Amino acid sequence: MSSSLLTVGSVAFDSIETRAGKRNEILGGAATYISLCASMFAPVNLVGVIGDGDFPQEHIDMLTSKGINISGLEKAPGKTFRWSGKYADDFSSRTTLDTQLGVFEHFDPKIPAEYANPDILMLGNIDPGLQAKILDTVGDSSYVITDTMNLWIDIALEKLKAVIRRTDLLVINDEESAMLTGEMQVSAAADKILADGPGAVIIKRGEHGAYLFTKDTVFFAPAFPLKDVVDPTGAGDSFAGGLAGYLTQAESTNDEAIKKGMIYGSAAASHTCEDFGVENLKNLQRPAVDARFEQLRKLVSLK
Amino acid sequence: MSSSLLTVGSVAFDSIETRAGKRNEILGGAATYISLCASMFAPVNLVGVIGDGDFPQEHIDMLTSKGINISGLEKAPGKTFRWSGKYADDFSSRTTLDTQLGVFEHFDPKIPAEYANPDILMLGNIDPGLQAKILDTVGDSSYVITDTMNLWIDIALEKLKAVIRRTDLLVINDEESAMLTGEMQVSAAADKILADGPGAVIIKRGEHGAYLFTKDTVFFAPAFPLKDVVDPTGAGDSFAGGLAGYLTQAESTNDEAIKKGMIYGSAAASHTCEDFGVENLKNLQRPAVDARFEQLRKLVSLK
Repeated sequence: MSSSLLTVGSVAFDSIETRAGKRNEILGGAATYISLCASMFAPVNLVGVIGDGDFPQEHIDMLTSKGINISGLEKAPGKTFRWSGKYADDFSSRTTLDTQLGVFEHFDPKIPAEYANPDILMLGNIDPGLQAKILDTVGDSSYVITDTMNLWIDIALEKLKAVIRRTDLLVINDEESAMLTGEMQVSAAADKILADGPGAVIIKRGEHGAYLFTKDTVFFAPAFPLKDVVDPTGAGDSFAGGLAGYLTQAESTNDEAIKKGMIYGSAAASHTCEDFGVENLKNLQRPAVDARFEQLRKLVSLK
Repeated sequence: MSSSLLTVGSVAFDSIETRAGKRNEILGGAATYISLCASMFAPVNLVGVIGDGDFPQEHIDMLTSKGINISGLEKAPGKTFRWSGKYADDFSSRTTLDTQLGVFEHFDPKIPAEYANPDILMLGNIDPGLQAKILDTVGDSSYVITDTMNLWIDIALEKLKAVIRRTDLLVINDEESAMLTGEMQVSAAADKILADGPGAVIIKRGEHGAYLFTKDTVFFAPAFPLKDVVDPTGAGDSFAGGLAGYLTQAESTNDEAIKKGMIYGSAAASHTCEDFGVENLKNLQRPAVDARFEQLRKLVSLK
């Protein structure tokens, strides 16, 4: 049986400055990181949008070489989404210098017929109205993983809540969980989120790891303690991608499978942070991710 | 064989305000938290100083009822150390409102003869000049655990470095490790610290858990995800106390023993945070700590 993963989100050019250096208009976007990390585990069907004249063929070739189906990557008149930001030296914060939505502003995701009935649907961070539309198209038979961001909690809360009610596994960060619930402690925030529909919620804490809460379990996946972080852009999406990819090829989406998927996600994210953008992901293979999975297991193991 | 633990540090009155409420002049101080948490594992010999007229007998009685030997708790002319502070609602920061050193300003620790040759020496956060003096008195045959704070890195760096060279296990937080080494990433900071003498370093990250680094291992002890934090004062000292207490009664101070001790430390610290000051520690018994130890093991376990 070949299981399938469908993911939807941004494809972008990022200009990034960190203490390790600068890069200009390199490949980025949530759907890119999710797809690249998931592709180490299962074939990926990607839905996104790029400009019709500014997206290099080499990026297309790289994505397809990874087993990522880009039939759903629409070329629209205009420019590809661009983001520019600078990180504090200790990576505790980042400043957005510029955002040019380009073709992403009027993104209207279309699901190719060949993408039908995915086992796992990974909704990257986009307007919850569009996430709902995708759910309507794809149907609710998929296992639905949803990401979002503080912007949508601010300006589209009711639409977001409607999507969360149709979500199986919500993946957000601790700032977002606090905004969404008014609860500072992740454990208390998780109680409120679980009461609202999803069977599981993962609350990410960046370099501090991520918590899973379900009605039966609490689990913590540590982040790998890198000696040198080059660029944390895409770490959260890489985590989600590794997780979604693992679940696609696993035989279950039960608590134990999600836990393992989180460790794979953490492993993938750590590789992402070791170079700018998707640079490290271009050549990353399963054995290196498996090796880090084992390091993460040992990191918390008592004899 | 009865193994012994000697700890030195502050005994204080704390006035604390958090989102959960306010308390005025309650019992606190590093040596108090360390001793109370360690006493659940082994008898404790305490060295500290209090004022000669302002320290209630009930505190003395409570400490001795826990198997804490206070022969080394000196009464000096003047007032007991007082600290007052207020925590941000999300506990991400705290503001010191007032500090009155009192008798702690001229603290000159004296080690009673009956405290000689401790198996474990836990040096709480005090002037590194005094820590060195205690090392001279007690001798280097003990397993030495050292805590410190940013103040001493600022104003007494060379003295502190001399103490660290005589330390077996340094316990500091991530801010302090960054100040001490210039390295933001805990893993890189640990490399530099280990090169300087200690066989092991624990870098604490508050509610985000703690890392252990030795030449052979990296280990992460999670913090327990409490639904409600009342007062985090003394959490770091409780962690150190649980760890030091466990190591005192363990048969070894090898990496595996330190790892287990960290989980006990994390368990003890979580209980501390559930009420103001030492309130929860007064009645805390080993079974409740053991139960949380098991919860912390499960928190990171894959099947």
